[in-house]
Amino acid sequence: MQLPTIALTMGDPAGVGPELMLHALRSPEIQATCQLVAVGNLEVLRRCSQSLGIELPPMLVANLQSFMPGRGVDASASGCQQPTLIDIDFPNAANFEPGKVSAECGRLSFEAIESAISLVQAKKVSAVTTGPINKSALHAAGILFPGHTEIFAARDGATRWCMMQYSPEITCSFVTVHVGYADVPPLITEQSVLDTIELTDEALTRLLGRKPNLVVCGLNPHAGEDGLFGNREEELAITPAIRRARDQGIMLEGPLPPDTAFLPAKRQVCDAFICMYHDQGHIPLKALAFDTAVNTTLGLSIIRTSVDHGTAYDIAWQGIASNSSLYAALRLAAKLAPSIEC
Amino acid sequence: MQLPTIALTMGDPAGVGPELMLHALRSPEIQATCQLVAVGNLEVLRRCSQSLGIELPPMLVANLQSFMPGRGVDASASGCQQPTLIDIDFPNAANFEPGKVSAECGRLSFEAIESAISLVQAKKVSAVTTGPINKSALHAAGILFPGHTEIFAARDGATRWCMMQYSPEITCSFVTVHVGYADVPPLITEQSVLDTIELTDEALTRLLGRKPNLVVCGLNPHAGEDGLFGNREEELAITPAIRRARDQGIMLEGPLPPDTAFLPAKRQVCDAFICMYHDQGHIPLKALAFDTAVNTTLGLSIIRTSVDHGTAYDIAWQGIASNSSLYAALRLAAKLAPSIEC
Repeated sequence: MQLPTIALTMGDPAGVGPELMLHALRSPEIQATCQLVAVGNLEVLRRCSQSLGIELPPMLVANLQSFMPGRGVDASASGCQQPTLIDIDFPNAANFEPGKVSAECGRLSFEAIESAISLVQAKKVSAVTTGPINKSALHAAGILFPGHTEIFAARDGATRWCMMQYSPEITCSFVTVHVGYADVPPLITEQSVLDTIELTDEALTRLLGRKPNLVVCGLNPHAGEDGLFGNREEELAITPAIRRARDQGIMLEGPLPPDTAFLPAKRQVCDAFICMYHDQGHIPLKALAFDTAVNTTLGLSIIRTSVDHGTAYDIAWQGIASNSSLYAALRLAAKLAPSIEC
Repeated sequence: MQLPTIALTMGDPAGVGPELMLHALRSPEIQATCQLVAVGNLEVLRRCSQSLGIELPPMLVANLQSFMPGRGVDASASGCQQPTLIDIDFPNAANFEPGKVSAECGRLSFEAIESAISLVQAKKVSAVTTGPINKSALHAAGILFPGHTEIFAARDGATRWCMMQYSPEITCSFVTVHVGYADVPPLITEQSVLDTIELTDEALTRLLGRKPNLVVCGLNPHAGEDGLFGNREEELAITPAIRRARDQGIMLEGPLPPDTAFLPAKRQVCDAFICMYHDQGHIPLKALAFDTAVNTTLGLSIIRTSVDHGTAYDIAWQGIASNSSLYAALRLAAKLAPSIEC
């Protein structure tokens, strides 16, 4: 059986991305899971491997052009089991300082994402797993996307998408994510809640091979307690969306009080929680599934998963960063990937 | 050593309050922890004990007037180890239906609270533990308080108070509690955050016998990420309050991103989390410490703890309600009580 080919982006080279990439390139477990196409810079990997005192793993090195359709190297088609590195030009590779924000590192991290998107759109890879980027470094390089999700959505031309955090312990999808606390209520509409429910139902049906059981959280404490708290967001937006979803045959319950929604007994029977805002889902996710949750963007034609942590500048290039979140992200990408044509 | 005398209110008689009161009155563990003064109705306890098929435990029965200073019965002064029941007049005792909202039951639950407050103010008991009440039943009886805390605060004349949920696993104090999601931001002020910090520091110093370590959560995702999300509530209100608290010698850190604040490593070194809104603290509390958290109101001259669950009408009078939250509430009341004069 042919393994799915997954592009892995380096993330910000000054963060923990390069050492996690090295681990993945050297890991027999990962090689048995997917055909890896690392997207980053060779010199950075060489410096990082020296800093960690480990050997640079054997890999096929190519540039993006030579790797594109009809042009030379083709790791997936050749049946070659060795991982590949797409080596992106990075003039600062020998000089930048690990653990520090810089425009140059921001630019490389962005170019790696752009290249990975080109690979998946050219059907050279089946999915993308992204390493951690730094928003300040991106901004310093004049790249004003707030994060990966928005870059992928822009390149993909998707009209609707949502973030899902997946783990064996607990899975959450989000109606809103990176907006301020006070900006959430106007974004909770019947349509935005329904979109999130539908995307989650589709993704989990694919992942589990059966219809999932969903739980939809309320926005207010006690889910509003029949209008006692809040501005009836439950009655006006959430409940109508649940009704429409149910009419389509989606199995779900809610709106539940956000604090009791995540009780152990509920988690056992619920395949995913539909959350109204970032911390409603991220608080239980981090408390219960730290290090194992995988971030994925639903609704794109590109399958994309991501580590669930940042660049961790403070421990970068020291060899102590945990690879569990990255490996979980690669495993999920491999699981989702076979279902697309490549 | 004289055990602390604790008043226990029955809560709504149609809920699980009466059976939990019966368990407490019969429990050797609770009798060894405190001198119990149950406040409710004898006929309700008799009906409930028959429904459960258990015997009514031996107890001293008195009415409120005869129990007040200088008037006859005095369980605590007599050194009598038998628990006491303050029997409140309840014309419907033989007829009301368990598991149903009614104005009569709402009224009895309110009168039990009022009587317990009178007992603590008359120094006949050292603290109050409250059974679960039903807001709709209170409202049906024309009593418009949103909950216990507000009843106690009104009778106490407190100018500042806050809710704390205490458990061995995780303890949270709240700057806001029972308000809608959208109503929270204007209530997050330097003074309201500082009040919550100070009240929590005082209470935990008393409870732990040392200065506690506090963690203050941000309001926005990622605690605003330097103004990237939200309206700078962290910079304008939370950080100035932290600075003023630190000037007083309070040990605390923050504002932390709400999702990483509750990570296992942080929970091990943090004695209490200062939360900005209901679900920020209640989501991790319920996920991690369901059934063991105790609700207490800080800032009152009256020590008051409460069960962390509702009336549970659906399982009332069946003998299956868990008493662990009530027992934890009584134990915490007994622990806090000795430090007040009675």
